[in-house]
Amino acid sequence: MATKKMILDLDTGVDDALALAYAVADPNVDLIGIISSYGNTLVETAAQNSLNLLHLLGADDVPVFIGASHSSTTNNFEVMPISQLIHGKNGVGEITLETSPRQIETQSAVDFLIESAHQYKENLIFIPTGPLTNLAAAIEKDNDVATLIGNTTLMGGALTVPGNLTPFTEANIHQDPEAADFAFVHQQNLTMVGLDVTLRTLLTKKETAAWRTLGTLAGEKFADLMDFYIDAYANLNINKNGAALHDPLAVAVGIDPSYVTSIALAMRVTYDKESGDYGRTIGDKEKLLVPTTTKAAVLVDSKRFVHDFQNLMLTVLQ
Amino acid sequence: MATKKMILDLDTGVDDALALAYAVADPNVDLIGIISSYGNTLVETAAQNSLNLLHLLGADDVPVFIGASHSSTTNNFEVMPISQLIHGKNGVGEITLETSPRQIETQSAVDFLIESAHQYKENLIFIPTGPLTNLAAAIEKDNDVATLIGNTTLMGGALTVPGNLTPFTEANIHQDPEAADFAFVHQQNLTMVGLDVTLRTLLTKKETAAWRTLGTLAGEKFADLMDFYIDAYANLNINKNGAALHDPLAVAVGIDPSYVTSIALAMRVTYDKESGDYGRTIGDKEKLLVPTTTKAAVLVDSKRFVHDFQNLMLTVLQ
Repeated sequence: MATKKMILDLDTGVDDALALAYAVADPNVDLIGIISSYGNTLVETAAQNSLNLLHLLGADDVPVFIGASHSSTTNNFEVMPISQLIHGKNGVGEITLETSPRQIETQSAVDFLIESAHQYKENLIFIPTGPLTNLAAAIEKDNDVATLIGNTTLMGGALTVPGNLTPFTEANIHQDPEAADFAFVHQQNLTMVGLDVTLRTLLTKKETAAWRTLGTLAGEKFADLMDFYIDAYANLNINKNGAALHDPLAVAVGIDPSYVTSIALAMRVTYDKESGDYGRTIGDKEKLLVPTTTKAAVLVDSKRFVHDFQNLMLTVLQ
Repeated sequence: MATKKMILDLDTGVDDALALAYAVADPNVDLIGIISSYGNTLVETAAQNSLNLLHLLGADDVPVFIGASHSSTTNNFEVMPISQLIHGKNGVGEITLETSPRQIETQSAVDFLIESAHQYKENLIFIPTGPLTNLAAAIEKDNDVATLIGNTTLMGGALTVPGNLTPFTEANIHQDPEAADFAFVHQQNLTMVGLDVTLRTLLTKKETAAWRTLGTLAGEKFADLMDFYIDAYANLNINKNGAALHDPLAVAVGIDPSYVTSIALAMRVTYDKESGDYGRTIGDKEKLLVPTTTKAAVLVDSKRFVHDFQNLMLTVLQ
């Protein structure tokens, strides 16, 4: 069996940085590219952060592409103040990263995704950890994307728990509910890794201290980055017991679905601004009796995941 | 192992009538009483309907008790017009039932529930299919109820699908969200059988036609009752393919949880009228990492359940 190919779609972002490190580290996938999104940062910042992080990890063979700079229904994008508090103004917890000697690719993110879908088909794992604007744009440009990609595992949404931006909506989905709904309706083999499970996977300064003791630049930088995030979680009263491993969990589940218990459920994303539940991810009541390839992760083996995550981090940061 | 004892809490109601028949028919439980609630009908109507239905089925040994006549936060209750359209003005699809020769018990529903909790403890299965007002009142009067009852399996709520009264709330929960929240927070070994699963269990006129051909009075009456409900589902555009077996599914799951896939999840019911999601059943984000005995049914083996339901009905209606 050929090694699976993985494309990340990151709005890098502290936990996006961890997702990137996880994908670089896991021997079970071949990270073939990172496409960029707006969200935790501007898209240009996200792309440059990804490039610099890859350089820090010695993964200078992974190309980075620029994606959408704003949602499918707006003309511009500004980073939310809360995102800046959680991820730092530079997206990577105010740490300084050496600028990669490489350039961002000239091919567009959407074209790279379409091309890869045709090239790798069922062997392609696509992991969006921000808004679903790039995925929706790719499907709109080439409908085959919806059926070609073997596995799309996204971080976003909240099905059985309240949202983190409002009681109804999770931040990634809220950035572009129209695109998210389009992706949920059309993309086959889609798994939602939402707050239902990610809020149960907490990392603490105990783990980052172990990264630091590796005595490497990568260990130090990632520890600084994650400590900023853990402090933000505590200071903003999100969680005083640790910070959620949102984005890396999506990567892990994309590679090994057995980390979570998922239920098959056709879902929609509400985007009627009048309805009061703008950006809610919820089962499609019209399709309750129709078979679906869409899944939502609802339970997670947190202990196993955090353990395996830590082991991979200790390897990649060495 | 002693046969499990079952108490139903019904706002009878068409599907409550089916739940009653199911509990009478299933040899794996001993139906020891029915307590009554407002909801689909006034509480007095619900109690009399239960008494008459028990008489029709030859189950004149099951006592019926009167419970709360309105929610814990109101002083009176009026049946919603939509309930009358679905269940008929008399609650039982406008069919005429012979009046039972028996009387409703003088002991209150809450006291009967408390007494039974102490008497049967872990062998007691409690099935509320309406508002949770009686259960909350029992816990408030005697805190031990929360830990004594072995298994509480309720029909109500909507976790992974939209509500049926608003996008956020299911009708039973909406009757008394404060009581529901109190019950969800306090009652141990609580399983929610909500719209997530009940909307997937549909009965059609094919099955009721088989009841009718039994040539019995019970077969004819139950077929008339259910056909009214199936017609209402079609006419009100709720579902043209059949009517949901809401309440009997809760009875079945109370007896045999393997009909559904459930997830462990501490839940709350929102009841802030300002919040826009009044009556929403949703995971408690404060308890995501805390073990819980509360469960939500999220998937159902519809085929097996409808098949077994029909077999039991053909037995009890004979």
